[in-house]
Amino acid sequence: MAADTKSLYERLGGADVVASIANDIVDIHMANPVLNPRFKNSNPDELKILVRDFFAMGTGGPNNYKGKDMLSAHSGMNINETEMISTIDDVMVALDKNGVGQEEKNEVLAILYSLKNDILHV
Amino acid sequence: MAADTKSLYERLGGADVVASIANDIVDIHMANPVLNPRFKNSNPDELKILVRDFFAMGTGGPNNYKGKDMLSAHSGMNINETEMISTIDDVMVALDKNGVGQEEKNEVLAILYSLKNDILHV
Amino acid sequence: MAADTKSLYERLGGADVVASIANDIVDIHMANPVLNPRFKNSNPDELKILVRDFFAMGTGGPNNYKGKDMLSAHSGMNINETEMISTIDDVMVALDKNGVGQEEKNEVLAILYSLKNDILHV
Amino acid sequence: MAADTKSLYERLGGADVVASIANDIVDIHMANPVLNPRFKNSNPDELKILVRDFFAMGTGGPNNYKGKDMLSAHSGMNINETEMISTIDDVMVALDKNGVGQEEKNEVLAILYSLKNDILHV
Repeated sequence: MAADTKSLYERLGGADVVASIANDIVDIHMANPVLNPRFKNSNPDELKILVRDFFAMGTGGPNNYKGKDMLSAHSGMNINETEMISTIDDVMVALDKNGVGQEEKNEVLAILYSLKNDILHV
Repeated sequence: MAADTKSLYERLGGADVVASIANDIVDIHMANPVLNPRFKNSNPDELKILVRDFFAMGTGGPNNYKGKDMLSAHSGMNINETEMISTIDDVMVALDKNGVGQEEKNEVLAILYSLKNDILHV
Repeated sequence: MAADTKSLYERLGGADVVASIANDIVDIHMANPVLNPRFKNSNPDELKILVRDFFAMGTGGPNNYKGKDMLSAHSGMNINETEMISTIDDVMVALDKNGVGQEEKNEVLAILYSLKNDILHV
Repeated sequence: MAADTKSLYERLGGADVVASIANDIVDIHMANPVLNPRFKNSNPDELKILVRDFFAMGTGGPNNYKGKDMLSAHSGMNINETEMISTIDDVMVALDKNGVGQEEKNEVLAILYSLKNDILHV
Protein backbone atom coordinates (compact mmCIF):
# COMPACT_ATOMS: atom_id res chain seq x y z
CA MET A 1 0.00 0.00 0.00
CA ALA A 2 2.94 2.28 0.72
CA ALA A 3 3.52 2.72 -3.00
CA ASP A 4 0.05 4.16 -3.56
CA THR A 5 0.01 7.89 -3.46
CA LYS A 6 -3.69 8.18 -4.24
CA SER A 7 -6.31 8.06 -1.52
CA LEU A 8 -8.81 5.23 -1.48
CA TYR A 9 -11.42 7.86 -2.35
CA GLU A 10 -9.55 8.70 -5.55
CA ARG A 11 -8.91 5.06 -6.40
CA LEU A 12 -12.64 4.32 -5.97
CA GLY A 13 -13.26 6.93 -8.64
CA GLY A 14 -13.91 10.11 -6.68
CA ALA A 15 -17.10 12.02 -5.99
CA ASP A 16 -19.35 10.59 -8.70
CA VAL A 17 -18.51 6.98 -8.06
CA VAL A 18 -18.73 7.37 -4.29
CA ALA A 19 -22.17 9.00 -4.63
CA SER A 20 -23.27 6.15 -6.87
CA ILE A 21 -21.93 3.57 -4.38
CA ALA A 22 -23.78 5.31 -1.53
CA ASN A 23 -27.05 5.36 -3.48
CA ASP A 24 -26.68 1.68 -4.27
CA ILE A 25 -25.85 0.76 -0.67
CA VAL A 26 -29.02 2.42 0.60
CA ASP A 27 -31.19 0.90 -2.14
CA ILE A 28 -29.75 -2.58 -1.51
CA HIS A 29 -30.16 -2.25 2.28
CA MET A 30 -33.78 -1.21 1.87
CA ALA A 31 -34.51 -4.29 -0.23
CA ASN A 32 -32.68 -6.60 2.21
CA PRO A 33 -35.08 -8.40 4.58
CA VAL A 34 -32.36 -8.79 7.22
CA LEU A 35 -31.92 -5.02 7.39
CA ASN A 36 -34.99 -3.22 6.14
CA PRO A 37 -36.92 -3.20 9.43
CA ARG A 38 -34.22 -0.80 10.66
CA PHE A 39 -35.06 1.67 7.89
CA LYS A 40 -38.83 1.86 8.39
CA ASN A 41 -38.65 5.38 9.68
CA SER A 42 -35.76 6.56 7.50
CA ASN A 43 -35.84 8.96 4.59
CA PRO A 44 -33.84 7.25 1.82
CA ASP A 45 -32.69 10.51 0.26
CA GLU A 46 -31.33 11.87 3.53
CA LEU A 47 -29.72 8.52 4.22
CA LYS A 48 -27.98 8.49 0.84
CA ILE A 49 -26.40 11.86 1.58
CA LEU A 50 -25.22 10.70 5.01
CA VAL A 51 -23.77 7.48 3.59
CA ARG A 52 -22.09 9.35 0.73
CA ASP A 53 -20.49 11.90 3.02
CA PHE A 54 -19.45 9.33 5.61
CA PHE A 55 -17.97 7.12 2.91
CA ALA A 56 -16.08 10.06 1.38
CA MET A 57 -14.69 11.11 4.74
CA GLY A 58 -13.69 7.56 5.69
CA THR A 59 -11.83 6.93 2.44
CA GLY A 60 -9.75 10.08 2.45
CA GLY A 61 -12.10 12.32 0.45
CA PRO A 62 -13.69 15.63 1.46
CA ASN A 63 -15.13 15.89 4.96
CA ASN A 64 -18.71 17.10 4.68
CA TYR A 65 -20.26 14.51 6.97
CA LYS A 66 -23.00 16.09 9.08
CA GLY A 67 -24.23 12.94 10.82
CA LYS A 68 -23.57 11.55 14.27
CA ASP A 69 -20.41 9.64 15.10
CA MET A 70 -20.83 5.87 14.67
CA LEU A 71 -21.31 5.11 18.36
CA SER A 72 -24.00 7.76 18.83
CA ALA A 73 -25.66 6.82 15.56
CA HIS A 74 -26.09 3.18 16.63
CA SER A 75 -26.56 3.58 20.37
CA GLY A 76 -29.72 1.84 21.60
CA MET A 77 -30.12 -0.22 18.42
CA ASN A 78 -28.53 -3.45 19.68
CA ILE A 79 -27.31 -4.30 16.20
CA ASN A 80 -26.14 -7.89 15.94
CA GLU A 81 -23.53 -9.76 13.93
CA THR A 82 -26.04 -11.07 11.38
CA GLU A 83 -27.00 -7.51 10.56
CA MET A 84 -23.38 -6.39 10.40
CA ILE A 85 -22.37 -9.17 8.00
CA SER A 86 -25.44 -8.47 5.88
CA THR A 87 -24.51 -4.79 5.78
CA ILE A 88 -20.97 -5.58 4.67
CA ASP A 89 -22.32 -7.96 2.01
CA ASP A 90 -24.55 -5.20 0.65
CA VAL A 91 -21.61 -2.79 0.52
CA MET A 92 -19.55 -5.36 -1.36
CA VAL A 93 -22.37 -5.81 -3.90
CA ALA A 94 -22.54 -2.03 -4.33
CA LEU A 95 -18.78 -1.88 -4.88
CA ASP A 96 -18.98 -4.64 -7.49
CA LYS A 97 -21.84 -2.85 -9.19
CA ASN A 98 -19.64 0.24 -9.47
CA GLY A 99 -16.62 -1.58 -10.88
CA VAL A 100 -14.42 -1.37 -7.78
CA GLY A 101 -11.40 -3.71 -7.77
CA GLN A 102 -10.49 -6.40 -5.27
CA GLU A 103 -7.80 -4.44 -3.42
CA GLU A 104 -10.07 -1.45 -2.87
CA LYS A 105 -12.86 -3.81 -1.77
CA ASN A 106 -10.51 -5.28 0.82
CA GLU A 107 -9.63 -1.82 2.10
CA VAL A 108 -13.31 -0.92 2.46
CA LEU A 109 -13.88 -4.23 4.26
CA ALA A 110 -11.08 -3.44 6.70
CA ILE A 111 -12.51 0.02 7.35
CA LEU A 112 -15.99 -1.39 7.98
CA TYR A 113 -14.58 -4.06 10.26
CA SER A 114 -12.64 -1.41 12.21
CA LEU A 115 -15.95 0.32 13.03
CA LYS A 116 -17.37 -2.82 14.60
CA ASN A 117 -17.03 -1.89 18.25
CA ASP A 118 -18.95 1.34 17.72
CA ILE A 119 -21.80 -0.44 15.94
CA LEU A 120 -22.44 -3.89 17.46
CA HIS A 121 -24.56 -4.28 20.60
CA VAL A 122 -24.33 -0.62 21.61
CA MET B 1 -58.01 -25.01 32.74
CA ALA B 2 -61.75 -25.19 32.17
CA ALA B 3 -62.28 -25.73 35.88
CA ASP B 4 -60.60 -22.43 36.71
CA THR B 5 -63.06 -19.61 37.12
CA LYS B 6 -60.46 -17.08 38.15
CA SER B 7 -58.56 -15.02 35.59
CA LEU B 8 -54.81 -15.46 35.27
CA TYR B 9 -54.55 -11.92 36.69
CA GLU B 10 -56.33 -13.03 39.86
CA ARG B 11 -54.34 -16.24 40.11
CA LEU B 12 -51.09 -14.29 39.79
CA GLY B 13 -52.20 -12.35 42.86
CA GLY B 14 -53.93 -9.28 41.45
CA ALA B 15 -52.81 -5.67 41.24
CA ASP B 16 -50.04 -5.65 43.83
CA VAL B 17 -48.32 -8.78 42.59
CA VAL B 18 -48.63 -7.77 38.94
CA ALA B 19 -47.12 -4.34 39.74
CA SER B 20 -44.27 -6.08 41.55
CA ILE B 21 -43.73 -8.46 38.64
CA ALA B 22 -43.64 -5.52 36.20
CA ASN B 23 -41.11 -3.64 38.33
CA ASP B 24 -38.92 -6.72 38.53
CA ILE B 25 -39.14 -7.39 34.78
CA VAL B 26 -37.93 -3.88 33.96
CA ASP B 27 -35.14 -3.99 36.56
CA ILE B 28 -33.96 -7.40 35.34
CA HIS B 29 -34.09 -6.31 31.68
CA MET B 30 -32.04 -3.22 32.45
CA ALA B 31 -29.34 -5.33 34.09
CA ASN B 32 -29.33 -7.86 31.23
CA PRO B 33 -26.47 -7.24 28.77
CA VAL B 34 -28.40 -8.92 25.95
CA LEU B 35 -31.23 -6.41 26.32
CA ASN B 36 -30.04 -3.25 28.00
CA PRO B 37 -28.78 -1.46 24.88
CA ARG B 38 -32.46 -1.28 23.88
CA PHE B 39 -33.32 0.68 27.03
CA LYS B 40 -30.65 3.36 26.80
CA ASN B 41 -33.18 6.04 26.02
CA SER B 42 -36.00 4.66 28.19
CA ASN B 43 -37.37 6.05 31.43
CA PRO B 44 -37.58 3.05 33.79
CA ASP B 45 -40.51 4.44 35.75
CA GLU B 46 -42.60 5.06 32.65
CA LEU B 47 -41.64 1.62 31.36
CA LYS B 48 -42.73 -0.08 34.60
CA ILE B 49 -46.18 1.50 34.28
CA LEU B 50 -46.49 0.40 30.65
CA VAL B 51 -45.37 -3.16 31.48
CA ARG B 52 -47.70 -3.31 34.50
CA ASP B 53 -50.72 -2.15 32.52
CA PHE B 54 -49.94 -4.33 29.52
CA PHE B 55 -49.44 -7.35 31.76
CA ALA B 56 -52.70 -6.66 33.61
CA MET B 57 -54.64 -6.28 30.37
CA GLY B 58 -53.12 -9.41 28.84
CA THR B 59 -53.90 -11.61 31.83
CA GLY B 60 -57.55 -10.66 32.20
CA GLY B 61 -57.14 -7.77 34.64
CA PRO B 62 -58.20 -4.12 34.24
CA ASN B 63 -57.48 -2.45 30.91
CA ASN B 64 -55.59 0.77 31.58
CA TYR B 65 -52.83 0.22 29.01
CA LYS B 66 -51.96 3.51 27.32
CA GLY B 67 -49.06 2.25 25.21
CA LYS B 68 -48.81 1.34 21.56
CA ASP B 69 -49.97 -2.03 20.25
CA MET B 70 -47.15 -4.58 20.14
CA LEU B 71 -46.49 -4.26 16.40
CA SER B 72 -46.25 -0.46 16.50
CA ALA B 73 -44.19 -0.57 19.69
CA HIS B 74 -41.53 -2.78 18.11
CA SER B 75 -41.64 -1.60 14.51
CA GLY B 76 -38.19 -0.63 13.21
CA MET B 77 -36.36 -2.36 16.07
CA ASN B 78 -35.51 -5.59 14.23
CA ILE B 79 -35.67 -7.56 17.48
CA ASN B 80 -34.16 -11.02 17.10
CA GLU B 81 -34.77 -14.43 18.65
CA THR B 82 -31.88 -14.14 21.12
CA GLU B 83 -33.45 -11.00 22.53
CA MET B 84 -36.89 -12.58 22.64
CA ILE B 85 -35.68 -15.68 24.53
CA SER B 86 -33.73 -13.45 26.90
CA THR B 87 -36.85 -11.37 27.51
CA ILE B 88 -38.92 -14.46 28.28
CA ASP B 89 -36.19 -15.72 30.61
CA ASP B 90 -36.27 -12.43 32.51
CA VAL B 91 -40.05 -12.60 32.82
CA MET B 92 -39.79 -16.15 34.18
CA VAL B 93 -37.24 -15.00 36.79
CA ALA B 94 -39.58 -12.17 37.79
CA LEU B 95 -42.48 -14.63 38.13
CA ASP B 96 -40.35 -16.92 40.30
CA LYS B 97 -39.28 -13.98 42.43
CA ASN B 98 -42.96 -13.21 43.04
CA GLY B 99 -43.94 -16.74 43.97
CA VAL B 100 -45.91 -17.56 40.80
CA GLY B 101 -46.67 -21.27 40.28
CA GLN B 102 -45.68 -23.47 37.33
CA GLU B 103 -49.09 -23.54 35.67
CA GLU B 104 -49.39 -19.76 35.70
CA LYS B 105 -45.82 -19.46 34.42
CA ASN B 106 -46.75 -21.73 31.51
CA GLU B 107 -49.76 -19.54 30.73
CA VAL B 108 -47.61 -16.41 30.71
CA LEU B 109 -45.11 -18.19 28.47
CA ALA B 110 -47.88 -19.09 26.03
CA ILE B 111 -49.12 -15.48 26.00
CA LEU B 112 -45.61 -14.13 25.36
CA TYR B 113 -45.04 -16.68 22.62
CA SER B 114 -48.35 -15.71 20.98
CA LEU B 115 -47.06 -12.14 20.63
CA LYS B 116 -44.00 -13.27 18.71
CA ASN B 117 -45.08 -12.25 15.21
CA ASP B 118 -45.72 -8.68 16.33
CA ILE B 119 -42.32 -8.39 17.99
CA LEU B 120 -39.66 -10.27 16.01
CA HIS B 121 -37.99 -8.68 12.96
CA VAL B 122 -40.64 -5.98 12.52
CA MET C 1 -55.30 -28.61 34.75
CA ALA C 2 -56.15 -30.26 38.04
CA ALA C 3 -59.44 -31.46 36.59
CA ASP C 4 -57.70 -33.37 33.79
CA THR C 5 -57.09 -36.98 34.64
CA LYS C 6 -55.78 -37.88 31.20
CA SER C 7 -52.10 -37.53 30.32
CA LEU C 8 -51.07 -35.01 27.67
CA TYR C 9 -50.19 -38.05 25.53
CA GLU C 10 -53.77 -39.27 25.68
CA ARG C 11 -55.21 -35.82 25.10
CA LEU C 12 -52.99 -35.40 22.02
CA GLY C 13 -54.65 -38.55 20.68
CA GLY C 14 -52.32 -41.36 21.72
CA ALA C 15 -49.87 -43.44 19.70
CA ASP C 16 -51.17 -42.79 16.18
CA VAL C 17 -51.44 -39.05 16.52
CA VAL C 18 -48.08 -38.75 18.27
CA ALA C 19 -46.41 -40.78 15.51
CA SER C 20 -48.04 -38.53 12.91
CA ILE C 21 -46.91 -35.40 14.79
CA ALA C 22 -43.34 -36.76 14.96
CA ASN C 23 -43.29 -37.53 11.23
CA ASP C 24 -44.56 -34.05 10.45
CA ILE C 25 -42.02 -32.38 12.76
CA VAL C 26 -39.12 -34.10 11.01
CA ASP C 27 -40.49 -33.37 7.53
CA ILE C 28 -41.07 -29.71 8.38
CA HIS C 29 -37.62 -29.36 9.97
CA MET C 30 -35.97 -30.85 6.90
CA ALA C 31 -37.71 -28.32 4.66
CA ASN C 32 -36.84 -25.41 6.97
CA PRO C 33 -33.78 -23.47 5.75
CA VAL C 34 -32.98 -22.28 9.30
CA LEU C 35 -32.66 -25.88 10.48
CA ASN C 36 -31.93 -28.20 7.60
CA PRO C 37 -28.14 -27.82 7.57
CA ARG C 38 -28.24 -29.63 10.94
CA PHE C 39 -29.88 -32.66 9.35
CA LYS C 40 -27.50 -33.16 6.43
CA ASN C 41 -26.12 -36.34 7.90
CA SER C 42 -29.35 -37.57 9.50
CA ASN C 43 -31.51 -40.50 8.46
CA PRO C 44 -35.08 -39.12 8.46
CA ASP C 45 -36.65 -42.47 9.29
CA GLU C 46 -34.45 -43.03 12.32
CA LEU C 47 -35.04 -39.44 13.39
CA LYS C 48 -38.82 -39.86 13.18
CA ILE C 49 -38.64 -42.84 15.53
CA LEU C 50 -36.48 -40.94 18.00
CA VAL C 51 -38.77 -37.90 17.92
CA ARG C 52 -41.87 -40.09 18.30
CA ASP C 53 -40.49 -41.97 21.27
CA PHE C 54 -39.10 -38.84 22.94
CA PHE C 55 -42.38 -37.04 22.42
CA ALA C 56 -44.36 -39.99 23.83
CA MET C 57 -42.11 -40.24 26.87
CA GLY C 58 -42.22 -36.50 27.52
CA THR C 59 -46.00 -36.28 27.37
CA GLY C 60 -46.73 -39.13 29.74
CA GLY C 61 -46.98 -41.95 27.19
CA PRO C 62 -44.95 -45.17 26.98
CA ASN C 63 -41.21 -44.92 27.54
CA ASN C 64 -39.45 -46.54 24.58
CA TYR C 65 -36.98 -43.73 23.92
CA LYS C 66 -33.60 -45.18 22.93
CA GLY C 67 -31.84 -41.91 22.16
CA LYS C 68 -29.38 -39.83 24.14
CA ASP C 69 -30.51 -37.45 26.86
CA MET C 70 -31.06 -33.92 25.54
CA LEU C 71 -27.75 -32.53 26.83
CA SER C 72 -25.68 -35.32 25.29
CA ALA C 73 -27.70 -35.19 22.08
CA HIS C 74 -26.95 -31.48 21.53
CA SER C 75 -23.48 -31.23 23.06
CA GLY C 76 -20.99 -29.63 20.67
CA MET C 77 -23.72 -28.28 18.35
CA ASN C 78 -23.81 -24.71 19.72
CA ILE C 79 -27.50 -24.40 18.87
CA ASN C 80 -28.69 -20.81 19.05
CA GLU C 81 -31.97 -19.09 19.91
CA THR C 82 -32.96 -18.56 16.28
CA GLU C 83 -32.78 -22.30 15.74
CA MET C 84 -34.68 -23.04 18.93
CA ILE C 85 -37.52 -20.65 18.09
CA SER C 86 -37.66 -22.08 14.57
CA THR C 87 -37.83 -25.61 16.01
CA ILE C 88 -40.70 -24.65 18.32
CA ASP C 89 -42.50 -22.98 15.42
CA ASP C 90 -42.21 -26.17 13.38
CA VAL C 91 -43.58 -28.24 16.27
CA MET C 92 -46.53 -25.87 16.59
CA VAL C 93 -47.26 -26.21 12.87
CA ALA C 94 -47.13 -30.00 13.23
CA LEU C 95 -49.54 -29.83 16.19
CA ASP C 96 -51.95 -27.65 14.19
CA LYS C 97 -51.72 -30.04 11.26
CA ASN C 98 -52.78 -32.86 13.58
CA GLY C 99 -55.72 -31.03 15.11
CA VAL C 100 -54.20 -30.41 18.54
CA GLY C 101 -56.02 -27.81 20.66
CA GLN C 102 -54.66 -24.59 22.14
CA GLU C 103 -54.28 -25.87 25.70
CA GLU C 104 -52.31 -28.92 24.62
CA LYS C 105 -50.17 -26.72 22.36
CA ASN C 106 -49.36 -24.52 25.35
CA GLU C 107 -48.36 -27.57 27.37
CA VAL C 108 -46.05 -28.78 24.61
CA LEU C 109 -44.58 -25.27 24.38
CA ALA C 110 -43.89 -25.29 28.12
CA ILE C 111 -42.21 -28.70 27.88
CA LEU C 112 -40.02 -27.57 24.97
CA TYR C 113 -39.11 -24.38 26.80
CA SER C 114 -38.18 -26.38 29.90
CA LEU C 115 -35.58 -28.26 27.82
CA LYS C 116 -33.85 -25.06 26.79
CA ASN C 117 -30.82 -25.25 29.06
CA ASP C 118 -29.93 -28.71 27.78
CA ILE C 119 -30.16 -27.63 24.15
CA LEU C 120 -28.90 -24.04 23.70
CA HIS C 121 -25.17 -23.30 23.39
CA VAL C 122 -24.05 -26.65 24.78
CA MET D 1 0.23 -4.11 -2.78
CA ALA D 2 1.78 -4.25 -6.25
CA ALA D 3 5.14 -3.26 -4.84
CA ASP D 4 5.25 -6.28 -2.52
CA THR D 5 7.09 -9.18 -4.01
CA LYS D 6 6.90 -11.28 -0.86
CA SER D 7 3.98 -13.57 -0.14
CA LEU D 8 1.71 -12.82 2.80
CA TYR D 9 3.17 -15.97 4.39
CA GLU D 10 6.66 -14.47 4.25
CA ARG D 11 5.50 -11.07 5.44
CA LEU D 12 3.74 -12.70 8.42
CA GLY D 13 7.13 -14.13 9.36
CA GLY D 14 7.16 -17.59 7.79
CA ALA D 15 6.82 -21.03 9.32
CA ASP D 16 7.58 -20.25 12.96
CA VAL D 17 5.29 -17.25 13.22
CA VAL D 18 2.47 -18.97 11.32
CA ALA D 19 2.74 -21.99 13.66
CA SER D 20 2.62 -19.66 16.65
CA ILE D 21 -0.40 -17.82 15.22
CA ALA D 22 -2.18 -21.14 14.65
CA ASN D 23 -1.49 -22.30 18.20
CA ASP D 24 -2.80 -19.02 19.58
CA ILE D 25 -5.93 -19.11 17.41
CA VAL D 26 -6.87 -22.56 18.71
CA ASP D 27 -6.11 -21.65 22.34
CA ILE D 28 -8.14 -18.42 22.08
CA HIS D 29 -11.06 -20.20 20.37
CA MET D 30 -11.15 -22.85 23.08
CA ALA D 31 -11.35 -20.18 25.78
CA ASN D 32 -14.06 -18.26 23.89
CA PRO D 33 -17.58 -19.02 25.22
CA VAL D 34 -19.16 -18.14 21.87
CA LEU D 35 -17.10 -20.83 20.13
CA ASN D 36 -15.95 -23.46 22.57
CA PRO D 37 -19.06 -25.67 22.43
CA ARG D 38 -17.97 -26.42 18.85
CA PHE D 39 -14.65 -27.82 20.06
CA LYS D 40 -15.95 -30.21 22.71
CA ASN D 41 -14.99 -33.23 20.70
CA SER D 42 -11.85 -31.78 19.11
CA ASN D 43 -8.24 -32.66 19.83
CA PRO D 44 -6.46 -29.30 20.23
CA ASP D 45 -3.12 -30.61 18.98
CA GLU D 46 -4.60 -32.02 15.80
CA LEU D 47 -6.55 -28.82 15.33
CA LYS D 48 -3.45 -26.68 15.67
CA ILE D 49 -1.75 -28.63 12.88
CA LEU D 50 -4.77 -28.28 10.62
CA VAL D 51 -5.04 -24.54 11.29
CA ARG D 52 -1.30 -24.07 10.78
CA ASP D 53 -1.28 -25.91 7.46
CA PHE D 54 -4.47 -24.26 6.22
CA PHE D 55 -3.15 -20.83 7.18
CA ALA D 56 0.18 -21.51 5.46
CA MET D 57 -1.52 -22.71 2.28
CA GLY D 58 -3.96 -19.76 2.24
CA THR D 59 -1.24 -17.14 2.62
CA GLY D 60 1.05 -18.41 -0.10
CA GLY D 61 3.23 -20.72 1.99
CA PRO D 62 3.81 -24.45 1.60
CA ASN D 63 0.82 -26.65 0.89
CA ASN D 64 0.74 -29.46 3.43
CA TYR D 65 -2.91 -29.11 4.38
CA LYS D 66 -4.43 -32.56 4.94
CA GLY D 67 -7.87 -31.45 6.11
CA LYS D 68 -11.20 -31.20 4.34
CA ASP D 69 -12.06 -28.29 2.07
CA MET D 70 -13.90 -25.52 3.93
CA LEU D 71 -17.36 -26.46 2.69
CA SER D 72 -17.00 -30.12 3.67
CA ALA D 73 -15.38 -29.20 6.98
CA HIS D 74 -18.34 -27.04 8.03
CA SER D 75 -21.20 -28.90 6.37
CA GLY D 76 -23.98 -29.73 8.85
CA MET D 77 -22.69 -27.28 11.48
CA ASN D 78 -25.06 -24.38 10.68
CA ILE D 79 -22.44 -21.86 11.78
CA ASN D 80 -23.90 -18.40 12.22
CA GLU D 81 -22.64 -14.84 11.81
CA THR D 82 -22.02 -14.35 15.53
CA GLU D 83 -19.67 -17.32 15.49
CA MET D 84 -17.96 -16.12 12.33
CA ILE D 85 -17.33 -12.62 13.69
CA SER D 86 -16.08 -14.11 16.94
CA THR D 87 -13.73 -16.37 14.99
CA ILE D 88 -12.33 -13.42 13.03
CA ASP D 89 -11.90 -11.44 16.26
CA ASP D 90 -9.90 -14.31 17.76
CA VAL D 91 -7.69 -14.49 14.67
CA MET D 92 -7.06 -10.74 14.88
CA VAL D 93 -6.06 -11.09 18.55
CA ALA D 94 -3.68 -13.92 17.61
CA LEU D 95 -2.16 -11.75 14.85
CA ASP D 96 -1.67 -8.87 17.28
CA LYS D 97 -0.10 -11.22 19.81
CA ASN D 98 2.41 -12.26 17.13
CA GLY D 99 3.30 -8.73 16.07
CA VAL D 100 1.56 -8.76 12.69
CA GLY D 101 1.09 -5.33 11.11
CA GLN D 102 -2.14 -3.61 10.05
CA GLU D 103 -1.79 -4.26 6.33
CA GLU D 104 -1.20 -7.98 6.82
CA LYS D 105 -4.11 -8.11 9.26
CA ASN D 106 -6.34 -6.57 6.60
CA GLU D 107 -5.20 -9.16 4.08
CA VAL D 108 -5.98 -11.98 6.49
CA LEU D 109 -9.38 -10.41 7.18
CA ALA D 110 -10.11 -10.31 3.45
CA ILE D 111 -9.11 -13.96 3.07
CA LEU D 112 -11.31 -15.01 5.98
CA TYR D 113 -14.20 -12.98 4.63
CA SER D 114 -13.78 -14.60 1.20
CA LEU D 115 -14.36 -18.02 2.81
CA LYS D 116 -17.71 -16.95 4.22
CA ASN D 117 -19.98 -18.74 1.78
CA ASP D 118 -18.29 -22.07 2.46
CA ILE D 119 -18.64 -21.67 6.23
CA LEU D 120 -21.91 -19.93 7.14
CA HIS D 121 -25.17 -21.88 7.37
CA VAL D 122 -23.90 -24.88 5.41
